[in-house]
Amino acid sequence: MLVVQKFGGSSVRDAERVMNVARLVTETYKKGNDVVVVVSAQGDTTDDLIAKAKELNARASKREMDMLMAAGEQISIALLAMAIDSLGCPAISLLGWQAGFETNSTYSAARIKRVNPERIRAELDKRRIVIVAGFQGLNKYDDVTTLGRGGSDTSAVAIAASMHADLCQIYTDVEGVYTADPRKIPGARKLEEITYDEMLEMATSGAQVLNNRSVEMAKKYNVELEVLSSLKWVPGTKVKEVTQVEKMMIKGVAKDDDVARVSIVALPDNPGIAFKVFSRVAKAHICVDNILQSVGRDGTKDIAFTVPAKDAEDAVESLREYCEAKGAASLDYDTNVAKISVIGAGMETHEGVAADMFAALAAANINIQMISSSEIRVSVLVDKKDADKAVEAVHRQFFGE
Amino acid sequence: MLVVQKFGGSSVRDAERVMNVARLVTETYKKGNDVVVVVSAQGDTTDDLIAKAKELNARASKREMDMLMAAGEQISIALLAMAIDSLGCPAISLLGWQAGFETNSTYSAARIKRVNPERIRAELDKRRIVIVAGFQGLNKYDDVTTLGRGGSDTSAVAIAASMHADLCQIYTDVEGVYTADPRKIPGARKLEEITYDEMLEMATSGAQVLNNRSVEMAKKYNVELEVLSSLKWVPGTKVKEVTQVEKMMIKGVAKDDDVARVSIVALPDNPGIAFKVFSRVAKAHICVDNILQSVGRDGTKDIAFTVPAKDAEDAVESLREYCEAKGAASLDYDTNVAKISVIGAGMETHEGVAADMFAALAAANINIQMISSSEIRVSVLVDKKDADKAVEAVHRQFFGE
Repeated sequence: MLVVQKFGGSSVRDAERVMNVARLVTETYKKGNDVVVVVSAQGDTTDDLIAKAKELNARASKREMDMLMAAGEQISIALLAMAIDSLGCPAISLLGWQAGFETNSTYSAARIKRVNPERIRAELDKRRIVIVAGFQGLNKYDDVTTLGRGGSDTSAVAIAASMHADLCQIYTDVEGVYTADPRKIPGARKLEEITYDEMLEMATSGAQVLNNRSVEMAKKYNVELEVLSSLKWVPGTKVKEVTQVEKMMIKGVAKDDDVARVSIVALPDNPGIAFKVFSRVAKAHICVDNILQSVGRDGTKDIAFTVPAKDAEDAVESLREYCEAKGAASLDYDTNVAKISVIGAGMETHEGVAADMFAALAAANINIQMISSSEIRVSVLVDKKDADKAVEAVHRQFFGE
Repeated sequence: MLVVQKFGGSSVRDAERVMNVARLVTETYKKGNDVVVVVSAQGDTTDDLIAKAKELNARASKREMDMLMAAGEQISIALLAMAIDSLGCPAISLLGWQAGFETNSTYSAARIKRVNPERIRAELDKRRIVIVAGFQGLNKYDDVTTLGRGGSDTSAVAIAASMHADLCQIYTDVEGVYTADPRKIPGARKLEEITYDEMLEMATSGAQVLNNRSVEMAKKYNVELEVLSSLKWVPGTKVKEVTQVEKMMIKGVAKDDDVARVSIVALPDNPGIAFKVFSRVAKAHICVDNILQSVGRDGTKDIAFTVPAKDAEDAVESLREYCEAKGAASLDYDTNVAKISVIGAGMETHEGVAADMFAALAAANINIQMISSSEIRVSVLVDKKDADKAVEAVHRQFFGE
C-alpha cells in the first residue's frame, strides 16, 4: 500500500516531537507500506523567519520571502530523515523541486501545476522512506515558490493524487473531525467518515481542521483522506466520496463567530437592485455569504448579508456612495453575530432537519436573525453571546447528550 | 567592472550587520559595477543547525547534514536581497544550484566541478545585484552538497574565475593581511600586496586569513583577490600573481603553536631508514612538516619531525612497533613547541634572510630546535614559551619598531 503522511509544524516543533513522528512513520513502513512523508517547517520557524525579514524590509518582495520561508521545510525534512535513520530505517529528504513540484509564479500563493513523482518513485523503489518538503515548489523560471496558507496539506494531497496513493493521512493536533468543537461541547463525537462536500462545508462554516484547497483537490482526484492525531495513535476520520450516510445523517454542528452582518435599510426598490449592491461588494474583493432581502414595503427593500468580520468596514465603504445617492435610510454593520451551521449530506433527502434545528433554538430561547442553506447545510445567524448556547442546543437535538 | 564580494557569517550575523553589508554592496553597485555577492550563513546559524541534528542523530548521514546546512545560506541570501532592496537597488538571491554550482558527490566536503554562470549573467544583464549562497552546490544526482571548511571563499573565487571577474573581494573581520598578528605585535603592518604563493605559505604557517583552497584556485585561474574588512571601509590587501617585491622583501612573520615535535633517538642506521619511518606516518594520514635527521654516530641516527599537535599521539603510535623492533633508544613527542616562519617571495633572490632571522633570535636569547625552508619561507622551531618573543624579535629585525 502507498501511504502519504503529512505532519504540520506543531507535530515536529522540537526534537521530541520529531522523534515521535519518526516512530509513527517507521511503524507504517515496517508494515510493508511505501511511505511518503510531507512535513511543514518546525513550530515557530516560520514566525522567526518572518520577524527576521520584517526587521530589514517591511515590504520585502514575495520572491525573496518565498526563498526565505522555503528554508524552514528544508530544515525539518533533513531533521526528520536523520531521526528516521537513527531508528534504523532508510530515509531520504527531498525539497519541493526535487520531489517534482511545478507551480505557477504567484509567489507566496503559488498553485501547483504538476507533480512529477519520478524521483519519489525511484527512491521508494529503493525501499526508502521519502520525506518531502511541503508548501514549496519551483516555477518555470527555476525560482522557489511557496503555496501559501495550508500549503503542506495541498502538497500531500497532490503527491497522493499524482501517485494514486491508497491513503493520504493528515496528522494534526486533533484526533479527527468532530460533530462539534470537542473543547466546548462535551458530547461532541469523532466521526468515522465524512464526505468531501461535508468537509468543505464544515471548513467554510468555521471548523478549522483541513484547508479547503486540499479537500477540493482530494475530491477532484478522489484521494482518500484521513485526519488524525500525531500524538494519540488512534484511528481518525476518513474523508471520502461516499460514506454510509444512513449511519448518521448529520455530520456536525459548526460555529463561525468571525463574521459580520451588513445591513441596508429602506433602499428604494428598483429592478437590478441586488446586482447593483453585490457587484459593488464583489469589486472590493469581498466574499458575501448569507443574503437576506426583505419582501419590501413602501417601495423600498431591506438588504442584509454576512461577510468575514475583517471585511465589514470595506464592504460598507464599497456601498456608501451608492446608498447615499439612492437615499437609503441607513447602512451599517454589526460584528456582534455568529453563524451556526448543521452539516450533513443526508439532509438533502430527509426533511425536517431545518425544522428540528429551529425548534432546538426556539426551546433555548435563541433568536434567529438570518437563515441560509445549501443542499447539505443549514446555517442561522444569531447574537454572538448566544453562539455557544446555540451550538450546544443544536448538537443536543441531533446527537443527544 | 565585474566585482565579486564575499561576506562571512560574522559579517551578516544580525539585522544591523546585514544592513551594513547591503550599504557596502550598493556603494559598489552605484559606481557602475556589476556586483555578485557571495554570503555564508548568519553567525550562529550553522552551530544551531548542527546542534539540532546532534539531538536527533549523533551520526547523521552527510547527505542529510548538507541538506540541513544549506538552509543556512538560503536564509542569509534572502535577507540580504531584502536589505539591498530596501535601499532602493534591485537584487535577486540565488541558491548554489541556481547559480550553476556543479560539484562531485563528496557530501560535506564536495569539490566544485564546474560553475555555469548563465543565470548570474542573465540577472546582471538586468542590472540586478546577484546574491549567491556560498558553500553549496548540486551533484549529478540533483542532490544538495556543501563544500566544507572555507567553502564560501572558494565559491566566490570560483564565480570570479568562471566569469573572469576583475576583482574578488573577501570581506572578513580583519582589515587585510598583516606582517604579523596585529593583536600581538604592535608594529605589525598591513600589506598592500602579497603573492598567491606567499599567501599560501602564510596560511600554512599559521595565519588564519584565507582558506588555502580558495587561494590555490585563485592562483590557478589568476583571480585577483582582496582581503578587507566589512566594518572599516578602507583598502585591504591585494593577493595577486606578481607584486612589487622590491618594495618589501619579507611579507610577514607567522606563528603556529598548534604543532608537536616527534623525536626518535638512536635508531640503528640502515639504508632506507627515512622511507621506513615516514611511510608509516603517511599511512596514518598524518602530514609531516619539518624534518631533522642527525648525521649519526655509533651506527645510529636521531630523527625528529613536526606534525599538527592533534596528530602527535597517532604519529608516535604509528612508529612504536617499528622503533621497538629496531631497538631505538626512545620515541616520544613534545607539544611544548611553536613554529615561527618568515615569508616572502623576495628572499629567494636575496641572501641573508635566514641569517638575519637567526641573528635576531640569538640576540633575544632564543634557542632554535629545528630549521626548515622553502623558496619563499624560512621556519624555525622554538620553545612554546619563547614563541611570542621570537615573533616580536624577528618582526623587529625585518620591519623595525
